[in-house]
Amino acid sequence: MHIEITRHSLHHALQHIAAGLPSRPVQPILAGIKLQADAHRLTLTCSKLTMTLKYQLPSPSEMLTVQQSGSTVVSARYLIDIVRSLPGGVISLRMTENGILHMQSGQSVYRLATMDANEFPDTPPFDDRTSILINNGDLKTIVGQVAFAASTSEARPVLTGVSMTMREGGRSLKLLATDGIRLAARTACIDAEDFGNPLPSIVIEAKHLTDYSKMLTDAASSTQISFGDHDIRFQTNGFSMLASLIPGQFPSTDKLLPPAFGTEIKLDTASFAEAVGRVSLLAGDSRVVGMRITEEGAELFATSPDIGDVTEAVALAWRTGEAITVYFNGKYMKDIVNATESEQLYIRLTGREKPIIIETAPDDDTYYILTPIRSAH
Amino acid sequence: MHIEITRHSLHHALQHIAAGLPSRPVQPILAGIKLQADAHRLTLTCSKLTMTLKYQLPSPSEMLTVQQSGSTVVSARYLIDIVRSLPGGVISLRMTENGILHMQSGQSVYRLATMDANEFPDTPPFDDRTSILINNGDLKTIVGQVAFAASTSEARPVLTGVSMTMREGGRSLKLLATDGIRLAARTACIDAEDFGNPLPSIVIEAKHLTDYSKMLTDAASSTQISFGDHDIRFQTNGFSMLASLIPGQFPSTDKLLPPAFGTEIKLDTASFAEAVGRVSLLAGDSRVVGMRITEEGAELFATSPDIGDVTEAVALAWRTGEAITVYFNGKYMKDIVNATESEQLYIRLTGREKPIIIETAPDDDTYYILTPIRSAH
Repeated sequence: MHIEITRHSLHHALQHIAAGLPSRPVQPILAGIKLQADAHRLTLTCSKLTMTLKYQLPSPSEMLTVQQSGSTVVSARYLIDIVRSLPGGVISLRMTENGILHMQSGQSVYRLATMDANEFPDTPPFDDRTSILINNGDLKTIVGQVAFAASTSEARPVLTGVSMTMREGGRSLKLLATDGIRLAARTACIDAEDFGNPLPSIVIEAKHLTDYSKMLTDAASSTQISFGDHDIRFQTNGFSMLASLIPGQFPSTDKLLPPAFGTEIKLDTASFAEAVGRVSLLAGDSRVVGMRITEEGAELFATSPDIGDVTEAVALAWRTGEAITVYFNGKYMKDIVNATESEQLYIRLTGREKPIIIETAPDDDTYYILTPIRSAH
Repeated sequence: MHIEITRHSLHHALQHIAAGLPSRPVQPILAGIKLQADAHRLTLTCSKLTMTLKYQLPSPSEMLTVQQSGSTVVSARYLIDIVRSLPGGVISLRMTENGILHMQSGQSVYRLATMDANEFPDTPPFDDRTSILINNGDLKTIVGQVAFAASTSEARPVLTGVSMTMREGGRSLKLLATDGIRLAARTACIDAEDFGNPLPSIVIEAKHLTDYSKMLTDAASSTQISFGDHDIRFQTNGFSMLASLIPGQFPSTDKLLPPAFGTEIKLDTASFAEAVGRVSLLAGDSRVVGMRITEEGAELFATSPDIGDVTEAVALAWRTGEAITVYFNGKYMKDIVNATESEQLYIRLTGREKPIIIETAPDDDTYYILTPIRSAH
């Protein structure tokens, strides 16, 4: 293998795939990045087995020349640190006969140990049954609005995922995540679809989806999502992720949305988020924040034993229904309110032990559910 | 106590004194901030016993009105978090009869538990023997250039300090710090002095000096430094630090500077710093970087077993003397080079086991010494 690549392109490619590195590699080779060069392209791969990130650069191009095909695996940590610290210009990467990667740029000459590219785990053969095309900006937005609500506990693996379901005969995609306490749901339009088979609802690890969507900087391009029996592939502009699906049934959430509400308020999102943050300061480790809605208006309150208490009046755009007091996790409420990216919010309540529904518009496909805390202390 | 103060002023004052909070308070009251209001001012105090930070705001003024004198101590963590999260405007702080601090701003009403201000440790009576006036910009610069070289180990307490010595009959102040491996020395001019007694050399905790100087944003003002028998006081624009001196003799460092040099090079600081950084990437945990100076020029090199090695040529402005190879701690060299804030550096060597001298100008009062590592591995 012998390639010449601009520092900018290699740095850009490494940034895209770095999230694919396992934090604790189960095999030494997984701490490496696979470099594979042929006449047409350079492919960089990182793998954590259940998820593989790839970045491809075309050759010959202004940024890359492949002088000699070949492949190798080199320590990800060192490669990333070195490329980050190099000034601009061209980097030459050349395998020598004794298995050393010779890396030269400007006045710097690095010689790095490598691993056998044949040992690097291959991605499984992918059976592309069905695929859709979705705008990158839309995908990034809905992932940001939903994935935070997934569980981080492995107690119920399916809840660490985001459920993806095709709706409206394939014209839209619904994302849903819940950790059992809070739930986020959001629907986005699909640019184009190619249905080979009716699409089942699938579940993908929330962190994988977040890692992929973070790298979507070109909001005008689209991602092709291809659904397999056990895997899912996301592809855009040379960057791709192949991830295993999480097996198991995602819990049904339809019955969580009550048909009618006893109390409903509408308020300004930004000032409510700030108020929840200020009141949460005295909510202690339990993070219990109370909200009291009366005919006079609404107020948030919290008490931290031995420290003090706080009360803050909340301005309402309007209010309808009965007086009610509910308690909830202040951090969870703030996460939800920040995720909505809406100027105004509707909060609907049916009782102090019933789910709190947060919506950005009446009867919208975007909704959040927060399970209240039964008693204040 | 009852005061009204702008959120901006209180936030600004709290930022100044927060570094005076102990990380592990030996008494519960030291986790608090003392607020003391009288007809003329509000004083905020944080104390870690060996160091006390105070901030004073005059009253009445545009930012502060003292409605009723008094003092109290309130949890620093909660006060800082609350004030940070409040929007702009005026904050009213009022002690109620039951020892609760009533704090109101906008729609938020906090009621905080307090501690008895009489329990807060008093600063010792200060015997102001001698004082000098130094420009804040100069003080901030020289502290940044010297304090990093102090030791962080308590094995020799005096080395955790910065030595301050008056020079040139009181027209300049020399700061010096060393951890035994590296040494930094810098001299700054004094604006004005008032010598009651001849001034001994004193030693002050490097971290205290850094904490104080970080807050010096107004480079045009001056700090008055007052020297006592056991303490030192720094004062500028209502902000002050009183710190205990570190007892003990600072090691003599005069004989470390050799009278003549075998080899001398001059180079560009920024490109040398970057080169040291790039080579250090393969220096491993031992951080051993080699520098080889020959008639052809200079190069840096490092080897990390099982990973690889690196060589980088260093451009020299000029070179004089014998060929030599020395090894040093790459991180320490980079810290020194970055601290110099000079465009060009002179590096002087007398042998591979003799101190490496780094200067910003020939025969300057600013110099750095780095003890080499005897062998590469």
